Formats: sequence, structure tokens, C-alpha cells
Amino acid sequence: MKLTPKQLEQFDKDGYLFFPSLFTQQEIKVLTDEVPSLYAQRRPENVREKTGDVVRTNFAAHMYSYPFAKLARHPRMVEPIKALFGEDVYMHQFKINGKQAFDGDVWQWHQDYGTWMNDDQMPEARAMNVAIFLDEVNEFNGPLMFIPGSHQLGVMDAAHDVTTTSYPLWTIEPETIRKLVARGGLVAPKGPRGSMILFHSCLVHASTSNLSPWNRISVYLSLCAVSNHIRRFKRPEYIAHRDFAAIECLPDDCLLKAYDVAVPWKGGTPASALVSAG
Amino acid sequence: MKLTPKQLEQFDKDGYLFFPSLFTQQEIKVLTDEVPSLYAQRRPENVREKTGDVVRTNFAAHMYSYPFAKLARHPRMVEPIKALFGEDVYMHQFKINGKQAFDGDVWQWHQDYGTWMNDDQMPEARAMNVAIFLDEVNEFNGPLMFIPGSHQLGVMDAAHDVTTTSYPLWTIEPETIRKLVARGGLVAPKGPRGSMILFHSCLVHASTSNLSPWNRISVYLSLCAVSNHIRRFKRPEYIAHRDFAAIECLPDDCLLKAYDVAVPWKGGTPASALVSAG
Repeated sequence: MKLTPKQLEQFDKDGYLFFPSLFTQQEIKVLTDEVPSLYAQRRPENVREKTGDVVRTNFAAHMYSYPFAKLARHPRMVEPIKALFGEDVYMHQFKINGKQAFDGDVWQWHQDYGTWMNDDQMPEARAMNVAIFLDEVNEFNGPLMFIPGSHQLGVMDAAHDVTTTSYPLWTIEPETIRKLVARGGLVAPKGPRGSMILFHSCLVHASTSNLSPWNRISVYLSLCAVSNHIRRFKRPEYIAHRDFAAIECLPDDCLLKAYDVAVPWKGGTPASALVSAG
Repeated sequence: MKLTPKQLEQFDKDGYLFFPSLFTQQEIKVLTDEVPSLYAQRRPENVREKTGDVVRTNFAAHMYSYPFAKLARHPRMVEPIKALFGEDVYMHQFKINGKQAFDGDVWQWHQDYGTWMNDDQMPEARAMNVAIFLDEVNEFNGPLMFIPGSHQLGVMDAAHDVTTTSYPLWTIEPETIRKLVARGGLVAPKGPRGSMILFHSCLVHASTSNLSPWNRISVYLSLCAVSNHIRRFKRPEYIAHRDFAAIECLPDDCLLKAYDVAVPWKGGTPASALVSAG
């Protein structure tokens, strides 16, 4: 999968690219079949909604789930990012966000790179966000909202919101959002399960709560150019990874066939990955 | 404005009717110009969001605001309801819901008639809800969501949710919503300011939070058939009115021209309207 000049131009302008139905229903089923057992685990990688026991986000499944370990090496996702950065990439962050029926809470307006710069000392915004839909995303189940073009303005001031949801987040103030939306509008890509979005790590985004009876589970992967690896290990490793080895892609059929990949945290998270090391 | 046989059939089937741009921009401006001063007032009719000072809902503006007193008598809104019930109607409830930019919180899944039956002893579901858009409603600012056909099933079990938002509400449990949506789907009518929705008082509805920079202020009026007036005055009068006099319509141009209407609470809410009287 190569990005065309037109796609590259669109990415520069809007800050994201949408690929409806990039993965087949059969491929996605391999992943969705695995999610309930991941969410049921009592491990620090599962962050639950403040309303109760429903999982808001699961971290680092590629380290302990075989199907997600294969997804993390999928060429349809990795190759265009390598081409865009002109170098190898490593996995900086790996999340399966629940946004579950009835309980899925908001994600406030934020940029990802702000956190990576401030907390992780990632030198530049040379890391790409990827969203892969494990459920259909529609207007009712809290789709991701982007402010097109907002990535062009670099890192914005943010405040640490530790009260709105169960997950502390550096959020951007309303007056800034108002100006950005006046400039670029708002979009919310919607589509069937198996769709993928690539979006710039400075693109401002948010999502509302999910009051619908439909889960909106998505995988969010953040791939960083190897030379741009983080310099500080303040956050636990299961949130901000410290292994900067270049991702080696598996073949295109990897979700449907058996391939040899490591799942080193299968038996539990190593103690070193749970603590700050910087 | 008369409802056609096709519209009546659609109302029976879906439980709502949508009239895009029923009021002109000029007519709506008369109303929107009035809202900031209403929301700024410190009176019990203003219920604020739990996050702070932003108004979630304003009650009974037709009793103390001249433009809204005229809206409450507008033939484009009142006449189809009278025709539908085959008798005169009175104003049971009058709200201006803020759903304001950034702060507008969710309204959980509920039916209005359940509350009117239980709290107000309204004998039958012969009261109609009306939503009039004072702002454009789009996919980003928390549009009203309906479960089409859910009105046909009558009053459902509900639990009193006093924690989710600043306004206690009798809400319907997730398992019921799941079944209703599997049966009827979900819709969210969207359109320009000045649009109107008529919806059955048993129609199950909800709306998500508004993270967008666009207010979504709507007037929600509930008109009850006079013979079906409430029997108990448990809730304050500014929430559930006790004056069952038939609404007398003004002419169709009433929002743009001067007409003589009373605004008896202009100087303040009478003490009797603040208390339970049953």
C-alpha cells in the first residue's frame, strides 16, 4: 500500500487520511474475538470508566495478545507510515479504546504529541496516529472528531484535566478550539469495521460519549520514527514503550495465517514496565 | 398549517414529525436575542450544568419573556397539535434547553410521559412534545436522538437517576434501549435554526454531550389536551403548570409584530409557583 501524491497532499492539508474497509470483516473478527478476554483481565493495562467496571482503554495488547501482536506488524498499516517518514518506525503506544455502549465516556479536545513531548521528551512530531475500527463507527456511537488543518499550528497550550474522565489528559481550552474550528471546521469520519484512519500527532481531536447500544471499539496505534524515539521514561512502559527496535512487517495475510511473533508479556507485565524509569 | 394524512400516518408509525425551517431566521432572531438575558437571571427557573455556571435548562420563559410568551401561542406550533388531539391544549411545560458549546451535558434515555404520569398524575399520554431549534442542529452539537416506534409500547420501567447530570431524570435501563433500537433503529433529525419537531410523549429519546464550539439551544414545549390536565401538583408550577386554560393562538406573524400578551411572572416567580401543592 503506497500513498499517492494526492493523498500526501491531502494529509499535509487536513492532517488525516481515511481508508474505509481497509481490513476485511474476516480479518477484523480475529481481533474482535480477542477483545472480551483482554478487557476481562485484571491487569494495570486496563483503565476503566469512572462509572464502573467497563474498560475505557487497554494498553499494550500487542505485548500479550497474539492477534494484536500481528496487527502491530501489519504492512497495510506500517508501510505507508514508513514511507511518509522516510525511515523505520517503532511502536510508541498501543491502545484498544472501548467507547462502549452506554458507558463510553468523552475524550476531551487534545493533541497527542503535546503529551509525548512534555512527558516522554519525544523530540519532534514525527510519530503517526492510527485508528482501526473494530466496530462500525456511526453518528451515534461517539465518532472521533477532527479539526482539519489544526496539525499545522504545532503544539498548543494545554491544561491537565484530571477530573472529567477516569483518564487524566492534557486538554486544549475552549477559546482555542473555537478559533481552530472557525478556521478548519469539524469532521468525523464514519465507516464500517475494518476502516483505518492515519492522523497527524498534532491534529486536535475529541470524541463524545456513546449513549447508543453499539460499542465503538477501536485500536489506536502510535508509530514513531526510530530516530525520534522518546528520551525520558517518566510514564510506565505499558503506556510509552521503551523498545525502539524497528517494526518488521509480517506478510499481508498475517491476520488470517499463523506467523511466529513474540508476546513477551503473556504471563504478566514485567515489574520494570510498571514504573517510571526517568 | 394542517397535517396531511401521510404525516398523520408517519407520526403513528415513527412517533415524530420533522419540519425543517418552519420558522424564518428573522423570527428565530427575536427569540435568540432574548436568551442571554434569560440565562443571566438568578431565578429558580434556571437549572445550571453540574460543571458550573452554564444554564442547562430554563423553565417557563413564556411567563416572563414577551417573545417566548408569543411563541407559546404560535399557530404554526399549536394548531397541528389541537388537530391531532381533536381538542384544545394548554401549556404543561416550557423549557429552553442550553446544550451549550463545550459544557452541554447528556440527557439520558427517557420518556417524558413517564414523569408526567408518575409525578403529575397526567391521566393519559395525550400531550405532545415540541422542539424548536434556536441554533442549527448538526452531528457535532448533541442532536436529539429518537428510537422510532418506541412510543407504541407505552410507559416503560424507569429508574430515578440523580447522579449523572445536574437534573434528576427517570431513565430507561440499557437492556430495554438495546431491544428498542434493535426494533426501531436510531435517528437524529438535524437542520437549520427555525426547524421544528413534534414528538410523542412516550417516544424514547436522549442526547449526547456537546463538545463542539456551537451552542445547541432549543425550546422544548409540552402541550397537553385540556381534558387530560394533571391531577397532582407535586412539582413546582414553573416545571409543571397548573393553569389549564386553552391556549388562544395569535396570528401567524406574531413573532414579528406587537401583540398583547401577558407576562405575569415578569417581576418574579410567585411564591405559590415555587412549591409543591399536592
